[in-house]
Parts: sequence; structure tokens; C-alpha cells
Amino acid sequence: MTTSLKGNDILHGNQFLKKDIDAILKTASYFEKALKRKDQIPLLKGKILATLFYEPSTRTRLSFETAMQRLGGGVVSMGSVESSSVAKGESLTDTVRTVAQYADIIVIRHPKTGSAKEAADAVPIPVLNAGDGAGQHPTQALLDIYTIKKELGSLNNLKIALAGDLKNGRTVHALVEVLSLFGAKLYLVSPDILRMPEEITSRLRGKGMEVTETTDLKQACQNSDLVYMTRIQKERFTDLSEYEKLKGSYVINEDFLKQLNKKIVILHPLPRVDEISPAVDEYSGAAYFRQVRNGVYVRMALLAMVMGKTVKT
Amino acid sequence: MTTSLKGNDILHGNQFLKKDIDAILKTASYFEKALKRKDQIPLLKGKILATLFYEPSTRTRLSFETAMQRLGGGVVSMGSVESSSVAKGESLTDTVRTVAQYADIIVIRHPKTGSAKEAADAVPIPVLNAGDGAGQHPTQALLDIYTIKKELGSLNNLKIALAGDLKNGRTVHALVEVLSLFGAKLYLVSPDILRMPEEITSRLRGKGMEVTETTDLKQACQNSDLVYMTRIQKERFTDLSEYEKLKGSYVINEDFLKQLNKKIVILHPLPRVDEISPAVDEYSGAAYFRQVRNGVYVRMALLAMVMGKTVKT
Amino acid sequence: MTTSLKGNDILHGNQFLKKDIDAILKTASYFEKALKRKDQIPLLKGKILATLFYEPSTRTRLSFETAMQRLGGGVVSMGSVESSSVAKGESLTDTVRTVAQYADIIVIRHPKTGSAKEAADAVPIPVLNAGDGAGQHPTQALLDIYTIKKELGSLNNLKIALAGDLKNGRTVHALVEVLSLFGAKLYLVSPDILRMPEEITSRLRGKGMEVTETTDLKQACQNSDLVYMTRIQKERFTDLSEYEKLKGSYVINEDFLKQLNKKIVILHPLPRVDEISPAVDEYSGAAYFRQVRNGVYVRMALLAMVMGKTVKT
Repeated sequence: MTTSLKGNDILHGNQFLKKDIDAILKTASYFEKALKRKDQIPLLKGKILATLFYEPSTRTRLSFETAMQRLGGGVVSMGSVESSSVAKGESLTDTVRTVAQYADIIVIRHPKTGSAKEAADAVPIPVLNAGDGAGQHPTQALLDIYTIKKELGSLNNLKIALAGDLKNGRTVHALVEVLSLFGAKLYLVSPDILRMPEEITSRLRGKGMEVTETTDLKQACQNSDLVYMTRIQKERFTDLSEYEKLKGSYVINEDFLKQLNKKIVILHPLPRVDEISPAVDEYSGAAYFRQVRNGVYVRMALLAMVMGKTVKT
Repeated sequence: MTTSLKGNDILHGNQFLKKDIDAILKTASYFEKALKRKDQIPLLKGKILATLFYEPSTRTRLSFETAMQRLGGGVVSMGSVESSSVAKGESLTDTVRTVAQYADIIVIRHPKTGSAKEAADAVPIPVLNAGDGAGQHPTQALLDIYTIKKELGSLNNLKIALAGDLKNGRTVHALVEVLSLFGAKLYLVSPDILRMPEEITSRLRGKGMEVTETTDLKQACQNSDLVYMTRIQKERFTDLSEYEKLKGSYVINEDFLKQLNKKIVILHPLPRVDEISPAVDEYSGAAYFRQVRNGVYVRMALLAMVMGKTVKT
Repeated sequence: MTTSLKGNDILHGNQFLKKDIDAILKTASYFEKALKRKDQIPLLKGKILATLFYEPSTRTRLSFETAMQRLGGGVVSMGSVESSSVAKGESLTDTVRTVAQYADIIVIRHPKTGSAKEAADAVPIPVLNAGDGAGQHPTQALLDIYTIKKELGSLNNLKIALAGDLKNGRTVHALVEVLSLFGAKLYLVSPDILRMPEEITSRLRGKGMEVTETTDLKQACQNSDLVYMTRIQKERFTDLSEYEKLKGSYVINEDFLKQLNKKIVILHPLPRVDEISPAVDEYSGAAYFRQVRNGVYVRMALLAMVMGKTVKT
């Protein structure tokens, strides 16, 4: 494998070449197998990861902290609550430069788009973007693509429906960048006012992808092998009556699956609210908790690779 | 030892057989001795404990995190503040299922009675209840019984006074379940409106225990070898004037001990407010800080045992 | 080296003899060199540090947690937010005694002057003061003196300007105690109402130090080899208009450095607000981020030494 991410930042879904993705997925797959045999693969023993979360995200933070510990490394952590009280007017740049004196890698989540890049530019150590506002969430995109490959067996001839809030959803924004490397056929399912930004769809089409925009979830699912559901995020709305109108737009429940009359793989970045009913969890295609677990393997791969560690894949 | 807790959840004070308790106390005792010789007994090296605290409890959380680290394991932690902000409407079941993709064991504290059971039913990994509302707090009961045995030398012919808020106190509710296996003679000391629920006392009596309810702390102590004090918990009262009237009902101070005219062992789950005066800390029977330390040994035992680790006891 | 800090508390800048400082700086220097070769020097493997922060301070907390992990030890942590909600009326003494049942060392930050001493008196294990109100912050003073020695090459014939809020700044209060052991020539630069307390300056003079008080930063810098800037702390003012008037009193920017017409080393305990402009960060004398890193080495030295570990220096 000639690809090296050593010393790199992980900032944006579009920063990767196809061979980078391949290397990451292979490394993640190595860790998945290795963890079946033992609890820890101590490639990063003695290294320290700092997690800086300016927005709460237990899920993503715990996933990174687990990944680092499974690699034998240590963690120091700044919580979202502290971040606000500690600020005392300190710039993001100063905080990150300070933390770079302690840690070997930084993972950052911040409400402002572009802040992860700003942080990365300020320090010599690798910075991983764990979500910057409505911007990007590249490690989520990578765990999504890892899950898609595992569930469907291949990344060729993908037919995928993406549903929900495609306007504000940073996970889908990052995911389509990665998917564009593999030439998937996409169905973008959303209410009109939550459509994928035109700037993104036209770039995807420019790369030769077949992109269909629709409001009809069932039809999109009938044409797809996998549906990626997202939550209509209350916190992105200023007009709550608008939210109330839209939140129930797309719901996958047992009825929906019966009508569909075919098997489909269901992913979701979680947390979900009502868009997938709990009864669906037993469905063999319901892959969203497997997706969570895959996040650990993929983040182990990223942490190891940016620290220059290679594994036999 | 034939008892195995491997893969078990620890949810309720009444889930244990006497031989389970014996095995737990022996294992805890093994760890107590082992920690005199070295700082770490790395039976759980590479394993990860997730602590999910929906209510604050620094004491219990740090006790578990210490126990896990003394066993060589790692910890990922969701704080009480995050839990509220992170929720975004996610169900407890979904959160726990997510965390079960990261960790090998979950410790949960939650304000709702029954929530630990709900969590345990949702995941295949062991779940330990660190307090569910006014429900149970079984690991506290186990460290209490461990302390009682150490302080009194035996669990036979116990004469124990339990004092304070016996209505809402989940620690005493869990403790009496465990004590009922050993046939103690109990003095239940409380103001009338904070009496032990009838449902519990009648069950205890049904098991053949001698249970005396009283409002007189001194007399109860004169008949007992050990008194278990509890705090009148302000946060359980809706009418604060009621709280003000009752909070000073039972106070152990130097005067009280002099009048008692015999040695008594004093336990308390802590934190205390006014019910034990600081001057009593120097009294040889004041065992509440030793009790705190015992919590580490007992939690090490539980963590090791639910992970299927056995020690030579 | 005959000095031993084994079992000692680290509470106050004036507790050290010159030979203690020498031993600490040599040990810190040892760790600095050792960390160039490997990520961890596991002298404290199996030991547990408890960090109790009653005031937020991500910087100091992460520095200690990093130091402990670089020594192979573990950490349990009570955050500032929890501390307030958890309190339930518990005394500081009770909390510290409880935590001393779990951990081998305690680091405490607390808003009340004298609280670190109070904590230390309550427990047999070493307590390190990470800031007690407007009182002391001795580990900061030690990392400052380590940085001064590294940047200037020696602690002889020091000429140092201290600027900003000298009245409330606990870092400068602790630093001058340590400096007094080495006989520095001091320039104290502050607005009149933020002057160093008379009680301190007269003690310094009593020890034979040459102390000049001034409001003129430029002149002080021209006479000094190093300037220690501090933030005018908004949170110490009751009258905010007073703060607004004073906050811009002293600013080091590119212009200031040009006018100075000589090289000067610049330290700052951070966080900074406006008192050092970001453009100055590229200046070779700007040592404040190196100072942050030195904090890890010095805290490793202190943690190792109070636990009785010695290194070949």
C-alpha cells in the first residue's frame, strides 16, 4: 500500500483519493478482525489524543475515545460545557495551540463551519474534524462507506437513497463526496425546502454521477439497495411550526417495509427520533447499530494512519 | 467456587443468592489484599467500561472508574450535563445500544426507577445499576455488606439499626434485601412520614427477620452493633418546610456517643450533611470512609466477575 | 540529590528551598529529554491521579492529566460543573477524604484562598494546589521558572519585568516567591490600582531583591531580559467600566517590539486576550507556547517526586 496519511489532517470528505479510501477501509477491516481476537491492538501506546468538543456529541466523542484506547493510547478531553465557561475570550487558535503542547492528535467538533481547518492550520500535529457546524463530518462519511461496502459486499454499481434533511445534514454532505469517487446512482429524497444544495448536486453531476431528486421515499427505496436516513434536526429550524410540519415526512416502519416488497439495507447516523420505528431494529437490513460499531474500526484506522502506523492488510 | 456472574447484569439487591454474596465478598477481599502489594491487578487489561450518568454522582462514578483502572481497564464516560443536552430526543434504549458498540461493560445511573433494567434488556453486554431513582443501588448494598462483615467480623447474628429517610433511600432498600439473606435483627429508625415502605417490611418479616420500627435512635443504637445512618434528602421533598422540620431528627455527635455508653460501628453512604458531626470522624467506630474505600474492592470484584474473571480466593 | 518531596503537598510558592527548586528543574529537564525518545516514562504505572476542579481550567487540568499519563498513570476527574451540582451540601473536607480512598494523588483547583491547604490537611496522600482563588498557583510558578531558565540560559542576574494585573494575579504572586530565591531584579508594571500588594513587595525587598514599580511597560522592558505578561482579568472586577478603562493598558504588538530595539523573551500564563497581539507569536522571543509545553515536564517532575520516584539527573 503506497498511500500514507502520516501527519495529515482529516478535514473534509473531498480530500481523499480513491486509493486513500481503499487504504482506510482495508486498515479498518484489519482492526475489525484483530479485535475479534483481542481487546487491544497497542499501536499507539503512550500517545495521547485530545478531544475538543465545543458542541456536545457523546456518540462521536466516545467512539474516538474508544478507538484510541483500543489502540493502547490515552485520552484527555475538553467537554462542551467547559469550553464555553473556560473561553475567557481565548481564540480557537490559542486553545488548539495550547492543547497541541500536550497531545499527539486532536479531534475537534465546533459549531462554526471551517473551524476544523482553522485549528489544523494552527498546529503541526494531526487534527481530525468531528463535525464543524453545517460543514463536514468526514470520519462519519468514512464509517458510512465502510458500512456500505460491508453490507452490500462491494462499492461498485451502488444504488443509494439518501433521505431527510439534505440541506443541513453535514453527514450526507460528506458522504456524497466520498461516494462520488465510486460512481454511485443517487436518489436524493427530501421535502422541497430541505433539498441538497444545488452547488453540491451540480458538482456530483459534473463528476458523472446519476442524481435523481425526489420527494417520494418509497419509490427511491424501490430503486435502491440501501437507504441512508437522516433526522430532520429541530435545532436547525428558527420557525418551529415549519419543523413540526416536516418532521414526520419520512418514516420507515414495518408497514413501509412490507409495501416495499424487497430487502433494503437501512443506515442512519443516529440519533434517530421518529424516522425509523424501533420495531424495524429486528429487520435484517437494519444496519445502523452495526454502523456505530464500524465507527470504532474506521476511527482506529484514521488515528493509526495519521500517526504513521501501518498494518498488514 | 461454583458461582459465576459471567455475563450477568447487576440490577437489584434481591437478585443474589447467599452463595453469590459469599463469592463477591471473597473476591473483593482478594482484591483488597492484592492492592496492598501492588497498584494494579490487570485482569481487565484492554477492556473498556462506559459510565453513563444521567444524574450527577461523582462519588459512585469515580469509584467505578478507579476500580476499572485498578483492574488495568479503560474508561469512557458520559457526564450528567452532556446527557441532558445530548439527548436530542434519543431513547435510553438507543443510547445504551450505541454505547454497547464501544464498551465491554456499562455502568448506568438514571433518575427513573427501572431504567437500569430497561438498559440491560437492550444490550448483550453486562449492565451495572449505579442507582435508578428511588429504586435500587445494588453495588452500594454489596459494599455495605462487605463493610459490615469486616467491621463486625461476621455476618451471623447481626443487630443493625438503619436510620434516617427509610422511605426514599434507595441504599437502604437495596441493603435490607441483601441483609435478609443473613437473618439480621433490624431496627428501623425514622420519622413517621419517612418510614420504610410497608411492602418491604412485610417481605422482610415474611423471610423471618425480626424487624422493629421506632423513632428513637438512641434506644435502637443501644440494641445494635452497627448503625447505618442516611441523609434526609432535601431533593426528595416538595414541601421544604417539611424538610426543615425533619432534617435534624437524627444526629450522631460526641454527646450522643457518650450517652450511648457502648461502642457502635457507624456507616453512612455519604454525602452527609448534619446527621454525623465531623468530630465523630475520629471515633474508632466511625467506618464511613473505610466504607468508601471498600467500594473500590467490591466494584473491582463485580467488574471482574461479570467479565468472567476468577481469582483464587 | 538529597532533596525528597516524597509524600509532600505542593501548596505555595514559598514552600521551596533553593535546592528543592534545583531538584524539580533537573527532574523536569530529565523528562523533557526522555520524552524526545519515547512517549511514556511509566514511573507511575498503576497509580491514579484525581483532578478536582471546582473552577474551570481546561489548560491546567489537561496539563496535569497529560503529565500523569506520560508517566503511565491513570486519571479520574471531577469537572467544575459536576462539583456544583454534586455538592448537596458536602464539605470540601468530606469530598477530599472520599476521593483519597480512590486515588494516590489529588490535584485541586478551588475558588477559595486556602482551600488547597484545607484539603491537604484532611488527607494523608499528596495534594497539589492548581490554583486557590486569588491565592497561589505554585505549579505555574515552577513551570515559569523552568521556562525562564531555559530561555535565558541561567537563573543568575535575572532582570525581569512583570506586567498587568499584579494585584489579583495568583500566578505572579507565586512566581515572585520562587524568584526571590534567586535574587532577580524586578520591574513591576501595572496601573496604579492593580499594583502588587505592598505586603509582597516589602517582603521581596526584605529578602534583598531590587524591586522597581512603574506604569511604563516600554522602559521596564528596555531594562529587562524577559517580560512576564498577564491578563487583566475581567472576572475580578465588580465595576466593569473600570475594567474597560484598564484592559488595554499594556499591549505587546509588532510596533512595540520595533520600538524596543532589543530582543526580549515574552512569557504569559495564558489565556491572553489583547495584551499580546497574535502577530507577535512568530517572534523568536515569544515563548508562551513553549512555556505551556514545559508545564507538562514540570508537572511530571512534581507528580513523580511526591510519589517518591527519583530519576538520574
